[in-house]
Amino acid sequence: MTRTLELAVIAGDGIGTEVVEQGLLALDAALSGQDVVVHPTAFDLGAKRWHATGETLTDADLAAIRTHDAILLGAVGDPQVPSGVLERGLLLRLRFALDHYVNLRPSRLYPGVTSPLSAPGEVDFVVVREGTEGPYVGNGGAIRVGTPHEVANEVSVNTAFGVERVVRDAFARAAARPRKKLTLVHKHNVLVHAGHLWRRTVEAVNAEFPEVTVDYLHVDAATILLVTNPARFDVIVTDNLFGDILTDLAAAITGGIGLAASANINPDRDAAGKSVAPSMFEPVHGSAPDIAGQGKADPTATVLSVALLLDHVGLPDAAARVERAVAADLADRLAHVGRVRSTTEVGTDLAARIRG
Amino acid sequence: MTRTLELAVIAGDGIGTEVVEQGLLALDAALSGQDVVVHPTAFDLGAKRWHATGETLTDADLAAIRTHDAILLGAVGDPQVPSGVLERGLLLRLRFALDHYVNLRPSRLYPGVTSPLSAPGEVDFVVVREGTEGPYVGNGGAIRVGTPHEVANEVSVNTAFGVERVVRDAFARAAARPRKKLTLVHKHNVLVHAGHLWRRTVEAVNAEFPEVTVDYLHVDAATILLVTNPARFDVIVTDNLFGDILTDLAAAITGGIGLAASANINPDRDAAGKSVAPSMFEPVHGSAPDIAGQGKADPTATVLSVALLLDHVGLPDAAARVERAVAADLADRLAHVGRVRSTTEVGTDLAARIRG
Ligand SMILES: CC(C)[C@H](C(=O)O)[C@@H](O)C(=O)O
Ligand SMILES: CC(C)[C@H](C(=O)O)[C@@H](O)C(=O)O
Repeated sequence: MTRTLELAVIAGDGIGTEVVEQGLLALDAALSGQDVVVHPTAFDLGAKRWHATGETLTDADLAAIRTHDAILLGAVGDPQVPSGVLERGLLLRLRFALDHYVNLRPSRLYPGVTSPLSAPGEVDFVVVREGTEGPYVGNGGAIRVGTPHEVANEVSVNTAFGVERVVRDAFARAAARPRKKLTLVHKHNVLVHAGHLWRRTVEAVNAEFPEVTVDYLHVDAATILLVTNPARFDVIVTDNLFGDILTDLAAAITGGIGLAASANINPDRDAAGKSVAPSMFEPVHGSAPDIAGQGKADPTATVLSVALLLDHVGLPDAAARVERAVAADLADRLAHVGRVRSTTEVGTDLAARIRG
Repeated sequence: MTRTLELAVIAGDGIGTEVVEQGLLALDAALSGQDVVVHPTAFDLGAKRWHATGETLTDADLAAIRTHDAILLGAVGDPQVPSGVLERGLLLRLRFALDHYVNLRPSRLYPGVTSPLSAPGEVDFVVVREGTEGPYVGNGGAIRVGTPHEVANEVSVNTAFGVERVVRDAFARAAARPRKKLTLVHKHNVLVHAGHLWRRTVEAVNAEFPEVTVDYLHVDAATILLVTNPARFDVIVTDNLFGDILTDLAAAITGGIGLAASANINPDRDAAGKSVAPSMFEPVHGSAPDIAGQGKADPTATVLSVALLLDHVGLPDAAARVERAVAADLADRLAHVGRVRSTTEVGTDLAARIRG
């Protein structure tokens, strides 16, 4: 019986459209010979739509997206859209509305990839970033704006419910990995209320996963170890803002933002075992207006995000094929020195490797 | 006429006492031959005091400290003190009570020092971290603690008054440097209220310093550039929490926390030109209980903090002598390979070099 994968595609702006095209090629290649057919539906969302209509994400868009099995997103934004409009109105709205509480960001230094670190060691960890709480909730406000008496507040909201579910997810991921190590990153010596909630929750959930070793780092100390000893990390669990910061740093030490994949996951299922909302897969990079339209963008982060997608929808073998193809392509890049391939060329090469 | 420098000394715990001893030696050496006499007063504050009395910083302590010209702090804390007690009760209480709104953290990669980066380039920048606002204000709280319905909030408070004074200080520092470049780091696409206050303030104050070039980075992107291109930075201005995170990363790429100095400055003066409160100088590192009492701590960060102190109290030549001595000592460390000096040995060598 052929299974269909209803895929909402938000290519977006700038290099978003370029890399998504290659991501879809990779997806097709990974599913060739499998009894799975992809039905992509393009959603016109992002800067172009906002310029034309003033809309970021309507209720109708959201309802339509909800009916899909997964979302592939490229990147949104251009310099003419005021800061925060698409971030809060589209990207974060999707993450919050679809309750993407697990923001998963693997960091692996593939053989052949150059790190800015002189001695990175074997880097292979994953950050489980909380995706629906913290300072991202939009619970800020300002008074007397533009006067010498302006006060602007931002509130980080953390709940036992929200922290526990992402911590449990992180423990389960750690338990499934060879090293079985979980590092909580926070700043509980200053953010004592939120910090102690995170700390107590990790201690409590550890009882369900006694095989997992736990340690703790303040976020400032974590940045030090990410550059001096990244090999020490296995699974990191942290809040929304610390996760945002640490995953860009993690991308930098493992070859840059052109390789960094991410998944915004809602792992919950209803009584019938059906996923309650589609998860969203996107490269960590943005729309990069400076290089858009020139075929310079590296589609690898998007292709690796497709691997996360395949894994999430229950096709781990196809996911592994994509990852192996990327690994092989990266290992061969050294052989391409002096010959930079275009976005399409990299995508075509990857698709060919995935088909095998 | 001999000038006296009334110095409050908070040696603290662990390696704090060891490094402060060497810092005082360096201070004496730097002032030898000058008409300045140091009057140090030791304050028994930190973990030992808290264990003995339950006190962190009494009003009487604070009043006594206020009468001094400057504060030299080593490090406080031990693993038996609950997280947050000394941070909020002593360190942050001092910073807030004495209105240390400029938290100054220079990052320079000295010749001879190994960076974990393979190609760091010429790194010489300074972070001006706001010290009295942001998520450090302690305006958080929690309800239903320990139940499944716990909610823990942390509030970041930002005021026009608080942002403007530190931004102006950062502009003045940038204007006095050869490259005259200021980078604002924030996350205004998510923390829109606080972020826009910072952004508008930087734009407004730029009019007073038209010779300074300004750019902006989101905090996540800033961590990438700190490892891929740290040479691009000159002066960074940022909020309390982002500054905490970025300065540890900055320390890591310039030789580690053993070399990172910091100043908590209140630059304000009364009508008579007298400083309104003593500023505080401290290494960025902590009390390091794991190596305490073994003579293993590097006193260099404290000695460099003494240079910041000398500069702040109007003795820039003495400050420059200390910095040159540190630079020479670091350049010679390569010659000491296989021979790690003790805390006292490094301190003695530095004092000798300062005397010249
Ligand atoms: C664009 C922005 C809202 C987003 C975030 O801060 O989460 C991005 O930086 C990311 O990491 O996906
Ligand atoms: C100890 C802690 C309160 C402090 C801070 O967060 O400011 C430290 O990390 C620092 O950077 O001085």
